Amino acid sequence: MAGSERSSSAISASRQYAPYVEADWGFKNTWYPALFSHELAENGVKGVTMAGHDIVLRRSRGKVYALRDRCAHRGVKMSLRPMCLTAETLSCWYHGFTYGLDDGVLKTIVASPDDPLIGKVRIRTYPVVERAGIIFVFVGDEDFAPLPALEADMPIRITDDSNAVAHILDDNVYVRGIHRTGNSNWRLAVENGFDPGHLLIHWDNQIVAATDRKLGLGVEPIGEGAIKIIDEPDGPKGIMNMYNTRAYKFIMENKAVNMRARGKNSYYARTSMVLPGILLVEHWPIPGWAQYEWYVPTDDKHHEYWEILVGRCRNEEERREADYLYDNFLEPLGLRDFNDNDLFAREAMQNFYEQGDGWNREWLCAFDAATITWRKVAARFNRGIQEPPESYNR
Amino acid sequence: MAGSERSSSAISASRQYAPYVEADWGFKNTWYPALFSHELAENGVKGVTMAGHDIVLRRSRGKVYALRDRCAHRGVKMSLRPMCLTAETLSCWYHGFTYGLDDGVLKTIVASPDDPLIGKVRIRTYPVVERAGIIFVFVGDEDFAPLPALEADMPIRITDDSNAVAHILDDNVYVRGIHRTGNSNWRLAVENGFDPGHLLIHWDNQIVAATDRKLGLGVEPIGEGAIKIIDEPDGPKGIMNMYNTRAYKFIMENKAVNMRARGKNSYYARTSMVLPGILLVEHWPIPGWAQYEWYVPTDDKHHEYWEILVGRCRNEEERREADYLYDNFLEPLGLRDFNDNDLFAREAMQNFYEQGDGWNREWLCAFDAATITWRKVAARFNRGIQEPPESYNR
Amino acid sequence: MAGSERSSSAISASRQYAPYVEADWGFKNTWYPALFSHELAENGVKGVTMAGHDIVLRRSRGKVYALRDRCAHRGVKMSLRPMCLTAETLSCWYHGFTYGLDDGVLKTIVASPDDPLIGKVRIRTYPVVERAGIIFVFVGDEDFAPLPALEADMPIRITDDSNAVAHILDDNVYVRGIHRTGNSNWRLAVENGFDPGHLLIHWDNQIVAATDRKLGLGVEPIGEGAIKIIDEPDGPKGIMNMYNTRAYKFIMENKAVNMRARGKNSYYARTSMVLPGILLVEHWPIPGWAQYEWYVPTDDKHHEYWEILVGRCRNEEERREADYLYDNFLEPLGLRDFNDNDLFAREAMQNFYEQGDGWNREWLCAFDAATITWRKVAARFNRGIQEPPESYNR
Repeated sequence: MAGSERSSSAISASRQYAPYVEADWGFKNTWYPALFSHELAENGVKGVTMAGHDIVLRRSRGKVYALRDRCAHRGVKMSLRPMCLTAETLSCWYHGFTYGLDDGVLKTIVASPDDPLIGKVRIRTYPVVERAGIIFVFVGDEDFAPLPALEADMPIRITDDSNAVAHILDDNVYVRGIHRTGNSNWRLAVENGFDPGHLLIHWDNQIVAATDRKLGLGVEPIGEGAIKIIDEPDGPKGIMNMYNTRAYKFIMENKAVNMRARGKNSYYARTSMVLPGILLVEHWPIPGWAQYEWYVPTDDKHHEYWEILVGRCRNEEERREADYLYDNFLEPLGLRDFNDNDLFAREAMQNFYEQGDGWNREWLCAFDAATITWRKVAARFNRGIQEPPESYNR
Repeated sequence: MAGSERSSSAISASRQYAPYVEADWGFKNTWYPALFSHELAENGVKGVTMAGHDIVLRRSRGKVYALRDRCAHRGVKMSLRPMCLTAETLSCWYHGFTYGLDDGVLKTIVASPDDPLIGKVRIRTYPVVERAGIIFVFVGDEDFAPLPALEADMPIRITDDSNAVAHILDDNVYVRGIHRTGNSNWRLAVENGFDPGHLLIHWDNQIVAATDRKLGLGVEPIGEGAIKIIDEPDGPKGIMNMYNTRAYKFIMENKAVNMRARGKNSYYARTSMVLPGILLVEHWPIPGWAQYEWYVPTDDKHHEYWEILVGRCRNEEERREADYLYDNFLEPLGLRDFNDNDLFAREAMQNFYEQGDGWNREWLCAFDAATITWRKVAARFNRGIQEPPESYNR
Repeated sequence: MAGSERSSSAISASRQYAPYVEADWGFKNTWYPALFSHELAENGVKGVTMAGHDIVLRRSRGKVYALRDRCAHRGVKMSLRPMCLTAETLSCWYHGFTYGLDDGVLKTIVASPDDPLIGKVRIRTYPVVERAGIIFVFVGDEDFAPLPALEADMPIRITDDSNAVAHILDDNVYVRGIHRTGNSNWRLAVENGFDPGHLLIHWDNQIVAATDRKLGLGVEPIGEGAIKIIDEPDGPKGIMNMYNTRAYKFIMENKAVNMRARGKNSYYARTSMVLPGILLVEHWPIPGWAQYEWYVPTDDKHHEYWEILVGRCRNEEERREADYLYDNFLEPLGLRDFNDNDLFAREAMQNFYEQGDGWNREWLCAFDAATITWRKVAARFNRGIQEPPESYNR
């Protein structure tokens, strides 16, 4: 009987998605959410770190610009003490190195206006797109081309379903959410979010009780169709868990431990995960809504956890109703109380994988077919593995 | 004159007990105290780390079981969110991997009751013995055999003395104490506890003043009989400091610094240290009592400091008297105020030895004969040096 | 156009002052301020760390002695629990190893008065000089000879100026100041202190507004005479920024960002920096006064920031006036509020240089001629690069 020693079958499995195992710092050349629009007011300046890239964002005349957050002169972060002297530039607070917002070129040095470096030095810039109340930044190689459309790094638009949820980029949608720091590698967050077998940690959550939801103990894939691969031309790549009874057997009872699913209301909450790691849960937390999640790598041990709810909303009255629901039910019981358990679970895995050998020592079980498929798909479709920052950023 | 440079004589000395110098993570294949019995109620679950082993303890139907505290599936600690679904198993809170308490075998997965892993995967278990109000766990190699008796890893029973103190495993004894974290390697704690020359740090302690105890400045070994080796067949191994005037000269005065021992009451407090590092101080803190100490390695930089007092106690009335004494005198002035100084001293040594070369750079003096003898005995009689956890545990 | 990639010209520049780039732990064989005199009372004992050297200071009969702060026996810091048993010795609190204050020789062991180690073991001592209310210690190799005079490691005495400021070692001077920890390497502190282009961070400081001082935006060196090298025989080595209009063009306006110098009062505040890193700002914070700064390396990531003000003071009445000015104006608005910005700037540079490649990646500009000259002078005139402590101290 196999004990806790290293499993050679696990090692050979992990070789099948080796690029994924190597992506400690995330995938690159992809759009990541950086801030909510409301977090960056006109002339606001903020620094964020994504996949090891220190990036400073400034809004000027409504438009958001992103530059490398490290002055070329002595390497300080410009976001530490924002200094905006003109509408077209960002200045470093230390000696006044002043860079063009759109090209990163050194336009002047406040303390040395005739300096030979002016016009010759620049810092890199990052493409920015602002949609649905979120500022997205394209993180990766500066010379990556052509730039993919934002839609290519978003969940697919559901069309094959009369009861389809709205897409975040649709018109007439309500979009709200939160983001917060997770103390684990981004991949453990992705795998927790998509995992069809982790219902147990939500077993006694308030929102499950409040909605009298019939939450199974787990699922068992029973057909080839359990996991569908998403591979749209020029569009999202990823996988979809087909939660229907032809593809999955729903575990409603486990006699060995005398457990049985509770709740009366059973409804459909299909999940999908697309690169670089964006979860879509349809009809969650309540029917008609969708939950999006991003797990943006900060460094190799932390990620920024984005939780967004998307609903349909055609007019001001519906928006007021949605605000009421979001403020008093969906955020506190869904995004907070329910998802707090997911955050807890990822952080609990970190030590095992951080030591480097978790990928080879883990014992995956039947429902982990979804996780393994995700790893292979991610290993195949990513646009590059992010190198650690010491090799490009310091 | 020798300065602070490396001493070649110290290096050659340290080679005589090389296995001891290498035991950063402690000795293995030995009984260590894990918890007081009162710290683990029926169905209670707690995690402890000893010599780098993460261990989860559960009490079920009165009996205590110990398993590796790392689920085989994704490596989380089961003790983080205790889940007891049956009397014979411990379940992981994440996906419900459920292990047999006595064999560690995977009995079911709550979320996947027909999983092929069931019955094929297991986590290791640890032998447990509960005696004298303490839960002891045998830490080391899973296949170590035969298992030594708990008595072999305990101080010897004093028999050659009409005024002998009780043994902790005797009937009719009173046993109480505390345990707390020490921020030093376990060996520095052992050596501090046994050190016959460290009386100076207790010079002005309240319990010494309160008992008007005649505490010398130090001792000088004057005969071969100063240190006796303990080597019982199938029993404890260690050494005993024979604090009598034939073996040791008691330093009651140091004219160079004009210091003289204070106090009127002089009495016998013989000390011994047995493997894996258990101190016995007879007739301390007051005549008729004994103090036991364990310094259980947590990792290479921390130990769990156990301080236990053992007295004779034949009935409820004597127990009430002992409780009064313990609560109002022995613990606050003995285990706390007095021994706080020992904790301070070990932690002060940590930096010097942590850098790796303290064992070669130290200058040992006459009374350190006891320390050197301990090191040699420990190097000879231990049942194995604990490897760092990355090589077996992650 | 050069981007953020590594600059080969920067690398070849940094090779010109390679010993400076290697001096992570500071320069050795030099006088550093350890404590203010008032911080060490008679029989006071305090520990300090300078350039990685752990040093214990004791005052006995008025005189200050410095020894290595690590008992030869078990390596504990003696400063943790000061124990002074005689006027000529310092004792370790653990076992009473007692060292001569002036030679570091082991004079007795309290717990072992006849020990063979006595007279044979010693710890190293450090030369001490106490001047101008400051205790200076000579840090470096024990056998370095001959010992330089303290004056050689001090700013030069200004003589070529009818309006010269007082020298800290003069008679009839007023000397007060503070010291505090800076979380950056010492060199970043030196370079910040001397930097002629960093006026921008002081642009809106209260003391500048309060004195209506005409603070330029920066300077541009326009002649060979901008930076003068200080190389006194047996005296200080360093450089001086000649802030006059023949050597420097003062930037009073930058049209590209529409900034213009504020303030009406323009006056002379020449700066100089001598080894091992001592700043002198003449006529600062107000005319007639001088500010001295030391940036004493603690380890490779921290320095002790010393800020001293020196003024003339001939009698008690002038001292009372100076106290009033210092307490209510010069310290709070000068040493604190104004210099807090400098501390902030150094700490902001630390990450870039700590990663090791800042020295090669930085883009220095015109006014950084002063910094480059300082680096070359420091590389040339230092008395040795301090090795990391693991190679000599543990």
